[in-house]
Amino acid sequence: MNYKFLGNDITPEKLKSMTPDERSVLCSELRDKILNTVSSNGGHLASNLGAVELTVALLSVFDYRQDKIVFDVGHQAYSYKLLTGRFDRFNTLRQKDGISGFPRISESPYDAFDTGHSSTSISAAMGIARARDLEGKKNYVVAVIGDGALTGGLAYEAINDLGHSKTKMMIILNDNEMSIDKNVGGLSKHLGKLRISSGYISAKQTTESFLRKLGFVGRGLIKIILAIKDFFRFLIYRKTPSMFDDLGLIYYGPIDGHNTDELIKAFDAAKDIRGPVLIHVLTQKGKGYKPAEENPSDYHGVGPFDLASGVVSGKNSYTTVFANTITELAVKNPKIVAISAAMTLGTGLDNFQMKFPGRFFDCGIAEEHSVTMAGGLAVSGFTPVVAIYSSFLQRAYDEMITDCCYMNSHVVFAIDRSGFVGNDGHTHHGLLDISYLNSMVNMTVFSPRDYTDLKRCLAYAVDTVKGPVAVRYPRGTSPFEAEGPLYSDISDCVLPHVVCDYGDDFAIVSTGKISEEADRAMEILKEQGILGKHINVTMIKPMPAKEIWDLLVGIKNVFSLEEGIISGGFGEALERELQILGFESDVTVFGVRNPIVRAMSQKDQIRYCGLDAETVASSIRSALSR
Amino acid sequence: MNYKFLGNDITPEKLKSMTPDERSVLCSELRDKILNTVSSNGGHLASNLGAVELTVALLSVFDYRQDKIVFDVGHQAYSYKLLTGRFDRFNTLRQKDGISGFPRISESPYDAFDTGHSSTSISAAMGIARARDLEGKKNYVVAVIGDGALTGGLAYEAINDLGHSKTKMMIILNDNEMSIDKNVGGLSKHLGKLRISSGYISAKQTTESFLRKLGFVGRGLIKIILAIKDFFRFLIYRKTPSMFDDLGLIYYGPIDGHNTDELIKAFDAAKDIRGPVLIHVLTQKGKGYKPAEENPSDYHGVGPFDLASGVVSGKNSYTTVFANTITELAVKNPKIVAISAAMTLGTGLDNFQMKFPGRFFDCGIAEEHSVTMAGGLAVSGFTPVVAIYSSFLQRAYDEMITDCCYMNSHVVFAIDRSGFVGNDGHTHHGLLDISYLNSMVNMTVFSPRDYTDLKRCLAYAVDTVKGPVAVRYPRGTSPFEAEGPLYSDISDCVLPHVVCDYGDDFAIVSTGKISEEADRAMEILKEQGILGKHINVTMIKPMPAKEIWDLLVGIKNVFSLEEGIISGGFGEALERELQILGFESDVTVFGVRNPIVRAMSQKDQIRYCGLDAETVASSIRSALSR
Repeated sequence: MNYKFLGNDITPEKLKSMTPDERSVLCSELRDKILNTVSSNGGHLASNLGAVELTVALLSVFDYRQDKIVFDVGHQAYSYKLLTGRFDRFNTLRQKDGISGFPRISESPYDAFDTGHSSTSISAAMGIARARDLEGKKNYVVAVIGDGALTGGLAYEAINDLGHSKTKMMIILNDNEMSIDKNVGGLSKHLGKLRISSGYISAKQTTESFLRKLGFVGRGLIKIILAIKDFFRFLIYRKTPSMFDDLGLIYYGPIDGHNTDELIKAFDAAKDIRGPVLIHVLTQKGKGYKPAEENPSDYHGVGPFDLASGVVSGKNSYTTVFANTITELAVKNPKIVAISAAMTLGTGLDNFQMKFPGRFFDCGIAEEHSVTMAGGLAVSGFTPVVAIYSSFLQRAYDEMITDCCYMNSHVVFAIDRSGFVGNDGHTHHGLLDISYLNSMVNMTVFSPRDYTDLKRCLAYAVDTVKGPVAVRYPRGTSPFEAEGPLYSDISDCVLPHVVCDYGDDFAIVSTGKISEEADRAMEILKEQGILGKHINVTMIKPMPAKEIWDLLVGIKNVFSLEEGIISGGFGEALERELQILGFESDVTVFGVRNPIVRAMSQKDQIRYCGLDAETVASSIRSALSR
Repeated sequence: MNYKFLGNDITPEKLKSMTPDERSVLCSELRDKILNTVSSNGGHLASNLGAVELTVALLSVFDYRQDKIVFDVGHQAYSYKLLTGRFDRFNTLRQKDGISGFPRISESPYDAFDTGHSSTSISAAMGIARARDLEGKKNYVVAVIGDGALTGGLAYEAINDLGHSKTKMMIILNDNEMSIDKNVGGLSKHLGKLRISSGYISAKQTTESFLRKLGFVGRGLIKIILAIKDFFRFLIYRKTPSMFDDLGLIYYGPIDGHNTDELIKAFDAAKDIRGPVLIHVLTQKGKGYKPAEENPSDYHGVGPFDLASGVVSGKNSYTTVFANTITELAVKNPKIVAISAAMTLGTGLDNFQMKFPGRFFDCGIAEEHSVTMAGGLAVSGFTPVVAIYSSFLQRAYDEMITDCCYMNSHVVFAIDRSGFVGNDGHTHHGLLDISYLNSMVNMTVFSPRDYTDLKRCLAYAVDTVKGPVAVRYPRGTSPFEAEGPLYSDISDCVLPHVVCDYGDDFAIVSTGKISEEADRAMEILKEQGILGKHINVTMIKPMPAKEIWDLLVGIKNVFSLEEGIISGGFGEALERELQILGFESDVTVFGVRNPIVRAMSQKDQIRYCGLDAETVASSIRSALSR
């Protein structure tokens, strides 16, 4: 499709000189481009559709060649990318060697900061603004943050610092009442009150008319009341004062986030205020695409879909197996409670929430609080199941250690999206979890291979383990059999298993879903006359080293395979524990050395890191021939 | 000294039935006991002296046998320990097998939650309160948190959840205008406004009298104004509304935190409010001991000292060497800026701050924001030096990875208190840093042995390294030589060094200050006719494996020694990198397997983990005789 305005030749000058009607056309074109690209490539839809006017307004006021705009998380930055020189390549969005789904300083000089995890934008922008001030420069610095991301403690820490230091910068609060799911928290209610309040700009008038409605208050009194400073402070601002004012920011809003002209006026007015300003902008997730407006959660992150019919809900996955199993276990065990950090749908806990509303807690985008709160439930005799994606759980590294592991508390960590995640790229991989879990005292770690394995691990983790326990499972579907019954051979999950046994030339000891690559490597090598044994380990901490050694008797060449960082990972732990027992051979570790593996399919990422069957087979062959 | 009230026989009933005068005597006795114990054992003084009346009031209203009181950080819990059955053993405070300096559920059933790191109390208390509600119990749950800890994002995440869920619990905000240093942040200013406001209790009266002062407003109008809901909301509460109200809590205060009777009245009034209540209490750090009142920062955490003369400032330490070096480097390099997370004095950065006020940022107890903000400075061409204690930096694990390492940004992490910390016990050890740093892509890691080594590493990290770089150094003083000049042989720090070379029977490869134990082990073994080589490695990532191998030629028995967790640590990395190069021998790793090493001296902790010279020597001897 040919666009009237949208294209690689759109300059900052052109953007600034557009008429309201032209901007309106541009916004439609952006939506069209985003819809067409995302429906074909997958991506973040609802948040990007909501931020179109906001972005056009930003680029009408600020000059992206000097000014710095930091998008929180970054899944609302498509319009920005399209207007800052990446229109031509936008069809490569989230593809191998293509445009990233998130801002990347390596992709464009106009991306101010790499994002992907929540609530970083104010801190990052503040660092950028402080650098500007130290250098005596005059450019503007803007953080664009959603109301969901504002529930993250990091954002609050930054606001606290900002309100004190009075660093000149602007925060655009993009308030759509959602994180990925419907937003929760006291902040959300507070924003709700601000939303229905009369707003900063007209507050003075409102106060006057309010006082006048009292009838018996004369103009003279009104003037006096308005003139009294303390009194004035609340009435002049708005009926509901904001916590941002309390923390030292200048609050301005709320403003209709789909009215580009209003936005431009507000940004223009605010940009020359000396200190930090927060502009509260109201937007609608999914704006302009009916199915996404109606079900924004379903259109947060999507795979390719048909524009006419919308997205179709997915088939079975590790996530749904987790969700069904934990709900089933909770029927029998009233001590089980479930915790989500603003990811009820993503982690599959919506069903649990429906069935046990009193035993489900959505803590907001607040991984740290989720984990420490779980620690409080656990010391009180409950069994909290904290379901958080692997890479986001990194936020709660310290809380896992000090608020759960040190007290040996029975908190169950359900770690979704472990391993490669595909097109979201490196900020979203779960490649560090084995390493960080291995270093945590008292922690038991399960890395199941298939659905049945996952169910057993969960049952074992909930019913049998006494201390902190993690079950990590990948994004997507299992290449193995359909799921088996819940309670069959639960304790099997603590033992290593022989997946196949062709001979003693070598052994692969694998963990997790990536063992499918080992399966195929075994066959490839068998065809070449190299006959080995494949052992799969589900409970990787404590490592069942003695049992693994029993299976390795007579085998000298041992290789390990995992979907995670090598340092501190499964292979190194295996080698260490075998060595302590006196096992004489080394273990050659196959894993990830550099976790910066950019967007492509999960399969391609595995291949990129040399963990696919073909590469593993050929590495083993050369090692054996040495 | 014999006390009139204080003793192991003080019961909850006795506490509740005391007269105001008796309580006043009890408070004096608590202060006396705390002062005498801390001046002899060392410990946290100023915060504990400030919380005496607060604790007596809490225990006069709540029953610690059923009710749960969670002390944030826990360095204000001495009075609580003294009144809940630990008076007799209190002289063992912070000693081996003694009373911990922090709440420990393993020490007493009346300690509700283990603490040590900041800002966890509200989350933990909320978990405990939710468990209570699920079980239909009626006991009270209280979180006691300082204004400093309230700047941590975790506390805000919890308040956000609490204000929404309306879980019944009480937060006591112990506001002394300090964290360890003078508190910073917009919150601090906000609390300052609340402090000078007239307070909740008398607000109604104040409003009435305020309106009356207007003169021409009659009683009828006052009644009407007070009755109008929106109007009412602000006026009735106080002149300055609080952000806690905004977030859905009921704010109550401020109250004089050294007036036990007022406190009891407030706690009594508030305890039956159905939802979450925050009671704002004003205290003075160091209350009752003049030197601590005047210089509370100096009396935050102290070693043993003379009560009459006060503490004496310390001699040279790794901390002062860091502080002097970084200030010296900053004179030459204008791009260096320094960042502290509420630890300006503790990290030694006070001198830097004085010299370069514009280039120093205290972000509050906000490790996450400190790191991400540093990331923003780094992408803007500055070289931020972030000085945070090892165990507290765990809070910023994710931010180090996603906001610094992934962009390969030149952020310098100055990691104080790496290794064992002594009497603060396990929550404060820096035993995980090598492991987590090793797993971080692009990160360069230095672990200097002595002062000169530390200076070289810092100079190299600031001037030569391009990406993220960490320099870890221990608490306390160096057992080695005095410090050398700054710029001599800087690049030496990237190479392994032979410390001594007696023979080829074995080699110890050590890193960090603990290499002093290897020094002595060499001598012990030498006396026994076992002659080895001691190699010390300062830059441990990337591991100079080739250079180490060169030094290991002809040696089959290799041991590594580090003051840190084994999993993912120095020894494992050494073994891996040597193995990749084709080195044939295994490395036997000496390190920490279980980091829960309780309070005792650093020397004792090293011995407890078998990392002292004698144990290392005897382990090597038995390994060689196999």
